[in-house]
Formats: sequence, C-alpha cells, structure tokens
Amino acid sequence: MNTFGNIFKLTSFGESHGVAIGGVIDGCPSGFELDLDMIQAELDRRRPGQSHIVTQRKESDTVQFLSGIFEGKTTGTPIGFIIENDNQKSKDYSHLKEVYRPSHADYTYDQKYGHRDHRGGGRSSARETAVRVVAGAIAKQLLASKDIIISSYVRSIGHLELKIPLEDIDLSKIDSNIVRCPDEQMAKEMINLVELVRKDGDSVGGVIQCQVKNCPTGLGEPVFGKLHAALGHAMLTINAVKGFEIGSGFAGAQSRGSAQNDIFENLDAGISTQTNNSGGVQGGISNGQDIYFNVAFKPVATIMQDQKSIDKDGNEVKVQGRGRHDPCVLPRAVPIVDAMAAMVLLDYYLLNRAHQF
Amino acid sequence: MNTFGNIFKLTSFGESHGVAIGGVIDGCPSGFELDLDMIQAELDRRRPGQSHIVTQRKESDTVQFLSGIFEGKTTGTPIGFIIENDNQKSKDYSHLKEVYRPSHADYTYDQKYGHRDHRGGGRSSARETAVRVVAGAIAKQLLASKDIIISSYVRSIGHLELKIPLEDIDLSKIDSNIVRCPDEQMAKEMINLVELVRKDGDSVGGVIQCQVKNCPTGLGEPVFGKLHAALGHAMLTINAVKGFEIGSGFAGAQSRGSAQNDIFENLDAGISTQTNNSGGVQGGISNGQDIYFNVAFKPVATIMQDQKSIDKDGNEVKVQGRGRHDPCVLPRAVPIVDAMAAMVLLDYYLLNRAHQF
Amino acid sequence: MNTFGNIFKLTSFGESHGVAIGGVIDGCPSGFELDLDMIQAELDRRRPGQSHIVTQRKESDTVQFLSGIFEGKTTGTPIGFIIENDNQKSKDYSHLKEVYRPSHADYTYDQKYGHRDHRGGGRSSARETAVRVVAGAIAKQLLASKDIIISSYVRSIGHLELKIPLEDIDLSKIDSNIVRCPDEQMAKEMINLVELVRKDGDSVGGVIQCQVKNCPTGLGEPVFGKLHAALGHAMLTINAVKGFEIGSGFAGAQSRGSAQNDIFENLDAGISTQTNNSGGVQGGISNGQDIYFNVAFKPVATIMQDQKSIDKDGNEVKVQGRGRHDPCVLPRAVPIVDAMAAMVLLDYYLLNRAHQF
Amino acid sequence: MNTFGNIFKLTSFGESHGVAIGGVIDGCPSGFELDLDMIQAELDRRRPGQSHIVTQRKESDTVQFLSGIFEGKTTGTPIGFIIENDNQKSKDYSHLKEVYRPSHADYTYDQKYGHRDHRGGGRSSARETAVRVVAGAIAKQLLASKDIIISSYVRSIGHLELKIPLEDIDLSKIDSNIVRCPDEQMAKEMINLVELVRKDGDSVGGVIQCQVKNCPTGLGEPVFGKLHAALGHAMLTINAVKGFEIGSGFAGAQSRGSAQNDIFENLDAGISTQTNNSGGVQGGISNGQDIYFNVAFKPVATIMQDQKSIDKDGNEVKVQGRGRHDPCVLPRAVPIVDAMAAMVLLDYYLLNRAHQF
Repeated sequence: MNTFGNIFKLTSFGESHGVAIGGVIDGCPSGFELDLDMIQAELDRRRPGQSHIVTQRKESDTVQFLSGIFEGKTTGTPIGFIIENDNQKSKDYSHLKEVYRPSHADYTYDQKYGHRDHRGGGRSSARETAVRVVAGAIAKQLLASKDIIISSYVRSIGHLELKIPLEDIDLSKIDSNIVRCPDEQMAKEMINLVELVRKDGDSVGGVIQCQVKNCPTGLGEPVFGKLHAALGHAMLTINAVKGFEIGSGFAGAQSRGSAQNDIFENLDAGISTQTNNSGGVQGGISNGQDIYFNVAFKPVATIMQDQKSIDKDGNEVKVQGRGRHDPCVLPRAVPIVDAMAAMVLLDYYLLNRAHQF
Repeated sequence: MNTFGNIFKLTSFGESHGVAIGGVIDGCPSGFELDLDMIQAELDRRRPGQSHIVTQRKESDTVQFLSGIFEGKTTGTPIGFIIENDNQKSKDYSHLKEVYRPSHADYTYDQKYGHRDHRGGGRSSARETAVRVVAGAIAKQLLASKDIIISSYVRSIGHLELKIPLEDIDLSKIDSNIVRCPDEQMAKEMINLVELVRKDGDSVGGVIQCQVKNCPTGLGEPVFGKLHAALGHAMLTINAVKGFEIGSGFAGAQSRGSAQNDIFENLDAGISTQTNNSGGVQGGISNGQDIYFNVAFKPVATIMQDQKSIDKDGNEVKVQGRGRHDPCVLPRAVPIVDAMAAMVLLDYYLLNRAHQF
Repeated sequence: MNTFGNIFKLTSFGESHGVAIGGVIDGCPSGFELDLDMIQAELDRRRPGQSHIVTQRKESDTVQFLSGIFEGKTTGTPIGFIIENDNQKSKDYSHLKEVYRPSHADYTYDQKYGHRDHRGGGRSSARETAVRVVAGAIAKQLLASKDIIISSYVRSIGHLELKIPLEDIDLSKIDSNIVRCPDEQMAKEMINLVELVRKDGDSVGGVIQCQVKNCPTGLGEPVFGKLHAALGHAMLTINAVKGFEIGSGFAGAQSRGSAQNDIFENLDAGISTQTNNSGGVQGGISNGQDIYFNVAFKPVATIMQDQKSIDKDGNEVKVQGRGRHDPCVLPRAVPIVDAMAAMVLLDYYLLNRAHQF
Repeated sequence: MNTFGNIFKLTSFGESHGVAIGGVIDGCPSGFELDLDMIQAELDRRRPGQSHIVTQRKESDTVQFLSGIFEGKTTGTPIGFIIENDNQKSKDYSHLKEVYRPSHADYTYDQKYGHRDHRGGGRSSARETAVRVVAGAIAKQLLASKDIIISSYVRSIGHLELKIPLEDIDLSKIDSNIVRCPDEQMAKEMINLVELVRKDGDSVGGVIQCQVKNCPTGLGEPVFGKLHAALGHAMLTINAVKGFEIGSGFAGAQSRGSAQNDIFENLDAGISTQTNNSGGVQGGISNGQDIYFNVAFKPVATIMQDQKSIDKDGNEVKVQGRGRHDPCVLPRAVPIVDAMAAMVLLDYYLLNRAHQF
C-alpha cells in the first residue's frame, strides 16, 4: 500500500540505497503555477547534514520532475518525480545483511517478504519520507492559495516540553533555530539535550505539534473518513511515530464534559467557540477553528552503542553502533508532518468539492 | 466514506432515530460457521441500559441478517443486516432542531450538508457503532479460529488509571464488573467516580487499552498501510476518540533509544523480544509479540447541565440538560474498540494472504 | 466486490431467495428532494410479470428506505434500503441443490466459494439488479436536474435490429410498447419473435442501446478512468451481458480514419462535430456530443427444455426445463442499463467537480 | 485515475514529449526472479519503427528500473521505473498548440484541464501504453510460473478477418510475421492492405483477439468485479479501443439459449464444457475453460490528409497531414492487450488468494 489519498494521491517508491526514490502525484488540480524553489526548500528542511544536531550523511536530495508540469503550471495529469540516491554504493552495509537490528524493521520485512534490500534499511528507511515532502510541498502551495496555512514545530524533546498556550506560540519563528522550536530559550535547552544524547551515543524522542490556520468548515467525511482519523492515519505512517492526539487529546480524557465542551458564540467575525478543546474538528468535520494535533516520535532505533541481537539463523550477535545517525529525528521530521497534513487537507478539500452538486 | 476495510469491508448506514441502522459486510471468507449468539452477546455489551452507570435509554439492539449466510455458514457473498430503531418516534427532539449543542456535530453537519436529521444526533450519533460491533464480532470469530484473540478493557477513567504491568492484567476478568476494568479494586473506584459524575450531571473521559494475543508476524502493508496506522485510523473513527498510541507511545517519546529498543532473542518457543516497547509492530508490520495500544475518549458532550450556545440563525440560546445520557461512555465502548481492532486485523490477515503467491 | 463507484457509491447485497436484497448508497449529494414514486416506477419497469412476454414470477419489488432521507430530502449520509423477497420460501429448488445448470453460475460459485445458496441462483441471480435500479433512479433524478437525460431501448432481438439512424429514433416512445423498442413496427415483430421463442421453450438474446443527451464536456478520468471504460465496466457487470461498444464500435473498426474522424465545427450553438462516430467520448473524456453505446445480452441460460449436465460429484444428470422464465430478458434489462449508466455519469460528474479547485 | 488494479497495481505517469514516462508497480509478490530481457522484448514488440508497416518514429524505449528489485528478485516493495523520451525536443509541434485535431483528445483535454501539454498528444498519446507493457510483462512472467498463458493476435484489419475456429489457430505463429496474425496467408493480405492504406495517407482499424490458457477456476469477484467486466474495463482504457466482447459476444446475442448454452461434462481431464460460448467466464468467475475475447480498435485519428477543424478560439483551420504515423495500430497493440490482460488476471489471482482463509 504505497498510495496515499483519495483525490489528491501520492504513490511512493524507492529504497534507501537503490537507484532512486520517487513518486507520482495523481489528481493535482490543473493550471496551478508551481514554485519549484519552495519545493526544494522544503526538501532542504528534511535533508541530512543541515545542522550539527542531525545526521551528517551526505544527500543532495534534488528533486527532478518528469511529467505533469508544462510551462511551469500543473496540467492535471500525473506529476512523476525522482530523487536520486547519492549514497547508493554501500559496501559498508554487508555486515548487516543477515542481522536483525533491535527495534528496526529488518526482522518484520524478512518475515513478510522473505527477500529484502538490507542496505540502509531499504524500503523501511525514513529516506522514503523525502518523497512525501515533495508532494506535501505542492499541497501546501495549493492550500496557501486558499489561505490555509500549515505549521508544525517541535513541542517536546525527551522531558523538555514547550508548555505555553497555543495562542502564544509565534509560528513565524519555527525556522529561526536548528531544532525548530519557536521559543528561543526552549530551543537552546533542546539543542543542548540533543548534543548530550549524541555524546552518549544514544537517541531521544519527542513530540511535534501541527497547527492548521484558516481551515474552512466542512472538511471531513463521516463516518470512516473523519478528518482527525485521516490525519491520525497519515501521521502514524511516518517512521518512528507511535502516537497521535487531536485537541486536548489524552489530557482531555482525564477531565469532565463541563470543562471540555467548547461553547459556540456568534462574533462579528463569524461563528466561533470560546475554547478549542475539540482541536478544530467536531463529529469528524472541521468547524472553522484552528486545527491542532500532537505527534509522538519514539527515539530512533539506531544508536551508537553495541547491542545484543540475533541474525537470520537465530544466532546471537552483537550489533555495533557505527556510522552516521540522527540522535533526534524531530527537527528533520517537522517538514514531514507538514507534508502529510497538507496532503490530507488538500485531499479532503477536493473531496468536499465533489459533494457540492 | 461509510465503507471500512480493503478485503473484509463494512459499509454502514443509518441514523439514530431513522427506521433502522445496518450494514453490509463484503469480503467475508466463505464456509465459516457463525455463532449468532456470540454476535448478539457483543451487541449486548454495547447496549444502552445494561447497568446503572450507563444511559437508561431503551434499545433492544437485535440484529437481523438478510443475506450472505446459508444453512448457518457464510457464503462469501455480502452479509446484509439491520438493527431496527425502537426509539424512532421522537417528538422530544424538536427543541434541538435549530440548536447547535456544544462539542456535538450539529454545527459541522449543518455546515457540510445543509440538511440533516437532527433527532438524537442523526448520523453523528454513536448509535452507528452498533453496526461496527456486528461486523467486528464476525471478524473476532474468524480470528479466534486462528487463535488470534482481541481483548479491550477500561484502563483509566478521569484521573483513575490501572497502572499494573501488562503481563499482570487478567484479561479473563474484563466482564466481571460493569465498568469493564479487570482489577476488582480499581473497578470499584471507577464505578464510584462515574456515579459521582452522574450526580453532578456531568460526564468524564478515559482510556481503553486493547491487547491482541497470538498475532502472526507479517501483518501490515508499508508504507501507507502500516498496521498501527490502520489501527489508529480505525480507533479515531469511533465517536469521542481524540487520541491513539501504540506500545510505549507518548511516554516512550520522552525516553532514549537505549531504553526503548526491544532486544531480540531466540528462545525455545521461537524468536522473541526482551521488552515490547514497540507494541508488537515494527516498521508497520506485526513482529509476533503482543500488540497493545491505548485509545483516549473525551468526556461525552451531552451533559445534564444548562449550557450557552447558538441556534441556526446565530442567536444565543440556552441548551438544557435533559433526557438520558452516558456519564461515561467507556464501559460501552469496550466492544467497539474490540470490533474495530478485529476488523483491521482480519482485513490485514487477508491482505497478507494475497501476497503469498 | 459489491461496491460500485468512486464518489457516488452503491454497495449491494442479497440473494434471490434470502430474506431481502438491498443496498447502501454513499456519497449522494445532500439537500436533493427525491421523487420516490419515480424510483418505484423504475423498479416496475424491471419487475417480473409486467407483461406476457416476460417471466410470470410474482415479486412486488417494493423498496423501503431506511436512512439518508429526512423530510423528503437527501442528507448526504448513506441511503440504506431493502426490497423484501416475496418468493423466499422455495421448496421447489431442492432438486437443483447439487446440480450445475448449463451456462449458469452454479459451478463457478461452487468452485470459488465452496458453499452457496443454490435457491434461484442465489447471489448470481439477476434479481440483484433491482438494487441497482433503485440507486440508478436516484442518480437519474440528480442528473435530470442538470438536464442530463439517459434513455435506453431495445435495439435488437435475435436477428431483428432497428437500423434507423440515431437522430430518427423517437426516445419518447420507448415505453409505448411492452418490448421497449421505440419503433412501432419493429416492436411488433420483436414481440412476435419472443412469443415464438417462448413457445419453443427457448430464449433469445439481443442488444440494448443507451443514449445520453446533454452531457457536459469534461467527464472522464484518463488514463484508467476513461468515461467509456467506466461505462463498459458498468454494463459488463449486468447479468448476461457479453459485449459493449461505444460510438461506431466494432463496425467502425472495419473502416478508415478518413471516414471515421469527426470534424469539429463552430456553430451558433457552440462547438460541435459533423459526425459522431466517437459516441460523445474522445480520449476518455466527454466532448459534449450525445453519448451512445450498445450492450449485447446473450440469451438467458434458463430454458424450458431438458439439457444434459453434471452434478456436484461429477455424475451426469438431466436438467429439466420447468418453472417460470424470461424467454427474452431485454425488455426488463432496459431500466438496468439506464441505472448503471446513470450511476457512472453522476459519479464522474462529481469526480470532475473535485478537480475544480 | 492513473492507478490500475486492486492488489497488483500499476500507477502510470508521463507525457509523450516530457522528460520521461514511467510507472510504479505496487503489490508485486516478493522473491520472484525477473527476466529483464523478456520485459525489454515485450517493449520491442510495441516499439515504433519495428517494421515498415508501423510509424517510423525513433524511440529506443529502454526501461530503467529504480526500485523494488534486489539481486534480480522482487522484494515486494514498489517497483519504480522510467522510460526516457528520446523525442522530447519537438519544435515541430508548435503549429498544433492551438488546434483541435479531429477525433483526437485535444479538445476534451482542454475542456477538462484548461492547460495541457500539446506536444505529440501529451498525456493522451498512446506512448503511455509503453508503461503498461512493462507492468504487463512482469505480470505475464508471474502468471507463466503458474502455467497461465496469455496470447493476443490480430484477428481482423478493415474487412479482412481470420475466421478459422479458435482451436485451429496456431498461437505459436503470432510473431512469425510483422502484422501479428498467426495465419500466413491472411497475414500477407493484411500487410498488403496496410500498405495500401498508407499510400492513401489514411488509417484503418481492426480487432485483436486475446486467449488465456490454463486459467484456474474461481477468478472473478461478483457482482461488480466480474472477471469479464474487469477485462472489458482494462481493454477500453487502451487508446483507440471502442468495443469489447467475450465469448460469443455480439454474435451470440443474435442466437438462442439452446444453441448458446455450454453443456458440462466430466472428462478424464476434469470437468469441462462441450462448447465455450461463455468464453471461460460464467457468472463473472472463470470456469477453467479457455478465456477469449475480442477488442475493437478504431482507425487511428492521425491521417496524412488535410482535414478541416477549429482552433482554440473557434476559428476554422486546416489540419495538415504530415509527420510519421501508424496507418494501422493493431500490430503494435498486440503486446498492450497482452499486458492489460495479464495485469487483470494476476490481480484477480491474488484477490482470490485473499479469500482462502
């Protein structure tokens, strides 16, 4: 299942160390003038080597478009694209051919498929998410033309969490630092923590929050295409994601209805709610308030420490920590969360048009 | 989008106070002898009026099968079924025709569809989940024939949380009390809390945990059909659900890779992992360990207190708390979580067969 | 695969002699006032016993709507409906339980599913098409509100074929006779032929032509959702259909490009083509000209003559011709062709809306 | 809609004169050793310039695989591939930018999408079918490993038709001549006819017949996924196809049930039918007999004669016949019919596995 979406659809292909990764975007509206630089800029936000707190692997991550764009504008036909793998010659993976690294997908891919490309994680590598960033960047541009703005940022790393209220977060500062937390002081602490973790040869998880501004009412397709279910599904397909919550989420589950209910009011600017514990979605349909949700990333499985494991034949082996790794994947995952959110919202925007008979 | 699944598919229809709700199950394997009593028993676990801590509405929730079963066994053709609505004559909803109840779907349905059945929430009512329970009960039976067992229970209500380790939970005791928490002492405390909340005319949320035993390796379809993404999607389509986490989830996101990684070992019983922070899924594919995940339910929006709101014309109105409601939906939601989990697992079991060329 | 369509979707269930047949229509636009009498009228056009040249089986074919319609208008939520089987008590089918009737689906269903409802053909019975007629009648009403008119008629039975040019066919006369051929003289000949065939205890096939007037340009989704491919697929799912051709079809394949090409011209009424060998579709997209296509029905397999066959154990048996049958299914198939065409066109109309960003 | 299939899925992209065309095959079973030369050989059967009776355009049509194959075997992950367009620099198409060629897709694409790549037909060019041949060649290899053999050949061109019985056709001779008709004498006549047509600057249509040997019973998914409906849909998505019939098809529609019914018999080799008017499919499911069907191709719209037409602004223009064209597309379409048939059969083979619980 390598196709995502209903009307605006991405089909993804490619292994970490194959010839190339790439994708096909089907169902993109026609006649839209694309900003190709913006697409590359989003890829650069995900790219290895962008700062000293992420992996130092070298990948240029240059996207080449093959179809679906003519004279700078979309034609409504499929947009095919590839990103070549600079790193595809990789003798240094042969020692992992038969080994099942802890909490990686080596074992499960072998169980399911029998035959796999083990180099750099193959298809299970997070390298695949670069494809999503391309499609998501296009979706973001289309949404932006309707004033729908998607902004994700690092909300927590390890035990460090930015706890200020939603409305006090300055989303314009997300890219003002290398960890992508829009609070200067917290960003410093997070960077320090990641450096510490790296020195330990370890990894650390965290939470990314995504906010969507100016989403119109009516997006979402009950009962199995509820908007937050589609968003949750999208986020949970991102490598290392283990949790999703919308609005007040798990914390709200501890409280009472009288405290959680969002009271409607009719303001000059239109119908609004006094609070937004619903996170902008009620009954699976957007209600015009800001959408916000949290995405939990586990610490990445690759660490620079020796670990026990087994090989293909069941023998006990030692997996050595070596190579280049991300001590914390959160900063690079911000554009991926953006991308998946943008694809869902554009897809549901287009689905909602199909009902307007 | 009222169809769920890829191979084993449920299409659901019906409003809370229409003639009937019902569904069509497509893709059910043929020749399987169904236990119809077990299906009704699962419906009874979801039924209103089953205990004094749930809504006292009267609904018999009797399922009638119309097709797809012949001489007691499935034929592989669609299984159509209906559940009549006993409550369909409902003058007492006319006062809500023009009113948008706080944190309900009244407003969003009106925005999306323009015209809606307002009685009892119409299509957005959780009554629709009875249909899922029927399909889920069938899926549970098929899975059980392969020894795959699904068990959900109430893990927390409000601030009360059952914190004992997974392996110490006695899943055979889930139905030993009316709140469906398999710990006698905690169940008592939870029941007390729900009674207190009801006296306050309020509602309270909580968390249901689901465990899947004996799931074979290989279920899950990367990259967009990862098993936990399918489970998360399924859970987030249930009314009042606002969060999902698998394995160590949000808590794991705070920790380090060296603590989170699950070390493989080759035991006499086969390949296993020393810990199970992954929750039985790695790279989106089941690894043979127990699958477990948490589902966060917000407190239900209907409370027995007066609340401010607006009507269809934007006028401020008072929504009166009256009628019969669930102070806490968790006990009745346990079979719904079971049902959605069962549908996902059976669907992915069948999908995985399609690859075995 | 009992769901049809992309946006406007029908899920169908039911066996010929089960409790009921029925369906769920998902994705119907909301706020549309339905004419329920027209739906029943379309069912009556398909109903057994409507004239002396069709089967004399008794079925009232009364549709009951269970959901999705409120105060006479669609709500955008699924429209569930059932049609009870009056004929479900059927001792007289026990002799066919183990027998494979020639050119029926008995053998293939047994091979695929192992266990089947043999009574009256079970799921493979054309009775299932009544469900399609309900959904198609709704689609026809929606299309008619946009001036898109679908008209099918019997073009040939056996060797008798109405050969007058498209523009000379008076579509208002389709229902002026029991055989549904809009030419008085040809209709008489066809009725005589069917009567003759019935006296012989035999059956006879034929061709239905469908015409679509006022279809806007732009419907069709290249490359795998070409409009005529969707129409062809739809028609080929109807029982007894063995062929489909659009525009000049098989005859056009014998001729030359210089004769087949449709020359564009700019008339006062808009862009048009001098001829319409394309049948209103070019490159898989409607071009605004009338759409027309032919559907070939084989003679139905049930005949009133003794035939040799085998039973489940491979023994040779004699299948006796007895009971009530259709000597020619064409007159009753006209509303089915209408229905499938209407579902496709409405679905593609809505899909096309989804692109209009 | 540029994705085809349910389990074995092809997503196609690319314009005739863009950078490249290509595709992604999702759901291919893993561990299968691919014969890459055979894939290229199938492409060569479709390639321009292969003989003097087809277009003399130059395209090398070399496929490059980017993913999904490791050490020569499929990995079960998506197989991405591209075919570069040698012809992409094309000044000579500027005269067609604003012109709507008769019976081409220029006008309909413009109506639907507003903005299009006009060069060489852009997305509507039959060049896109090269992508299908790659995926179909892979499907053919998988099917062949189960002894399922697909063979298409040219049955008629213009008024010339090979009328010998099915069992007398020597399928091994399909590629013994350049027109791909497995009868030496008829092939000569066809070649002469095509040469004549070319001299006239005209084009001519025809019919391809496809036969499938050794198809197991049980393939097909009633009621909307009937095997012949899926095949019909597949064929009708091929450029220039206007008709499809299975078994006795349109001719059978003229005859009687007593002549059409296929009588079952139990032979030493297993259950069989005395005739095969059903074309190997009954009730939408394969019955183990040979599957055969006909596909009607109109004469291609490009002819070397001047034609009247209009331009984008509605002005009358003259379209000049110039360049390189196929006077008859049938010989090159044979591998395309093979490819689509193979994709359908493999897909339904895998779907059928999913039911075997």
